[in-house]
Amino acid sequence: MDIAVIGLGLIGGSFCKAIKAKTAHRCLGFDISQNVCQKALENKSIDKIITENDLDKADLTIVCLHPADTLNFLKKNVSKFKKGSIVTDSCGIKEYINSNVAQLYSDNGVNFVGAHPMAGREFSGFDYSLPNLFEGRSFIIVPTEFTNSETTDVLKSLAADLGFSNIVISSPQVHDQTIAFTSQLAHIVSNAYVKSPTIENESGFSAGSFMDLTRVAKLNEDMWTELFMNNRDALLFEVENIIEKLSEYKNALKENDSKKMHSLLKEGRMIKEKSLMFHADRKKPD
Amino acid sequence: MDIAVIGLGLIGGSFCKAIKAKTAHRCLGFDISQNVCQKALENKSIDKIITENDLDKADLTIVCLHPADTLNFLKKNVSKFKKGSIVTDSCGIKEYINSNVAQLYSDNGVNFVGAHPMAGREFSGFDYSLPNLFEGRSFIIVPTEFTNSETTDVLKSLAADLGFSNIVISSPQVHDQTIAFTSQLAHIVSNAYVKSPTIENESGFSAGSFMDLTRVAKLNEDMWTELFMNNRDALLFEVENIIEKLSEYKNALKENDSKKMHSLLKEGRMIKEKSLMFHADRKKPD
Repeated sequence: MDIAVIGLGLIGGSFCKAIKAKTAHRCLGFDISQNVCQKALENKSIDKIITENDLDKADLTIVCLHPADTLNFLKKNVSKFKKGSIVTDSCGIKEYINSNVAQLYSDNGVNFVGAHPMAGREFSGFDYSLPNLFEGRSFIIVPTEFTNSETTDVLKSLAADLGFSNIVISSPQVHDQTIAFTSQLAHIVSNAYVKSPTIENESGFSAGSFMDLTRVAKLNEDMWTELFMNNRDALLFEVENIIEKLSEYKNALKENDSKKMHSLLKEGRMIKEKSLMFHADRKKPD
Repeated sequence: MDIAVIGLGLIGGSFCKAIKAKTAHRCLGFDISQNVCQKALENKSIDKIITENDLDKADLTIVCLHPADTLNFLKKNVSKFKKGSIVTDSCGIKEYINSNVAQLYSDNGVNFVGAHPMAGREFSGFDYSLPNLFEGRSFIIVPTEFTNSETTDVLKSLAADLGFSNIVISSPQVHDQTIAFTSQLAHIVSNAYVKSPTIENESGFSAGSFMDLTRVAKLNEDMWTELFMNNRDALLFEVENIIEKLSEYKNALKENDSKKMHSLLKEGRMIKEKSLMFHADRKKPD
């Protein structure tokens, strides 16, 4: 296939590099920065630089922009894609994208299917992209009501080729609700965690737990604000929930209730162990 | 030196293995489980199994028990140690230990100095102990008002030999206040994090951020309850602080205030970056 990648940042660049390293497909690259395009061409991450007018050359197009830019690009260019070709995205929220483009793409004879590669780094941009960024990670496919099974199958197969080890099919609603917990809440909690005056003394007093809890505090606030504000209800539920749970530990401390503290900690430990067992048991998807 | 290690769990076992692997000192091991003692002797983690009556054989003793057990052991056995020898512990809270034993040890002619090796795993017990557990980690030395500099120097030098890369001298108060933030809060937040009904759908939807945030949710509730309840004021401050900070993100979501969300995220990102720069700049201690 000829695969177009739109936006050669961390995710888009990693798609290009993985396509070139792991498949026989041709990779066409588009980015607003000519500098980045040239770099990608020179280091053979892409076979060809394209413009918006070349979108009809691709059999499959992966849009790798921030949420609002993804939606704008998809809306603006719907008529430029090859009829019958596949268009997908890599946005971290799916209802926002799918609900706005499903009908439009169906009407234009282009096979749209949403996707979310569950991978990232604490760095942004093409320079940090990696051919193995997706190895062992989850790839979530989010069909619209118009997506046919052939389209889903092509994407599944490509994701497996690119190294994703776990391919999940989800509705936009389940995706957004779950991601609010597994990813968005993690970024908020981590970002809030560092906001203690005690961080001034931290150096020399931290072990792995501090590093783990605060790794994703270093985030791209432009992108994450968009993701959060477009998934408000689900994320609000999770933030309110963790505040409520943390308040239980707070009360146990306040009331000097070590029995309560012990039972709170035991409860959390058991939930975590159950979740770990589930991961260990999980079969690889076909 | 002849070094006695009291309690051959994850930390004690790792001390034994590191002493044998990296130094020429002899290692004497004590544990309430004869089974563990035998195993340690057989796999050469220790040179000799000792009882409480052999404590006078050691030039340096490292007590590696849970907080209340550490204090009990130190109080009960003060008269059994060799006069002029060094006794230290590995407890995660220092005021609780130091304030209860400083005078007692001074009166008995034994050189007590508190210590906290900043290392751990999500597993407990001798079977999980490792000779390289301390490599690259911080070792915090917490002298009492009676600790002489020779004692501190012996411990510093041993810690460096065992692989610790960062050796910090602290007062019990600064230690306990800082550890409440860097370690104890991390365990509470992680333990609270998993308590969302959404965890049922988590599998397939999680990337590194979820794994990082919830790694230490799997904790030993017996030990951590002791640590938390003996450091209540400092920990309560941190738990209340993060609840307050999280409430700001909650309000930004509730009020659909993306400008506020953006500025909250940017603030956290900048604090984290500053902390990372500080780590990168930090010189190795001498």
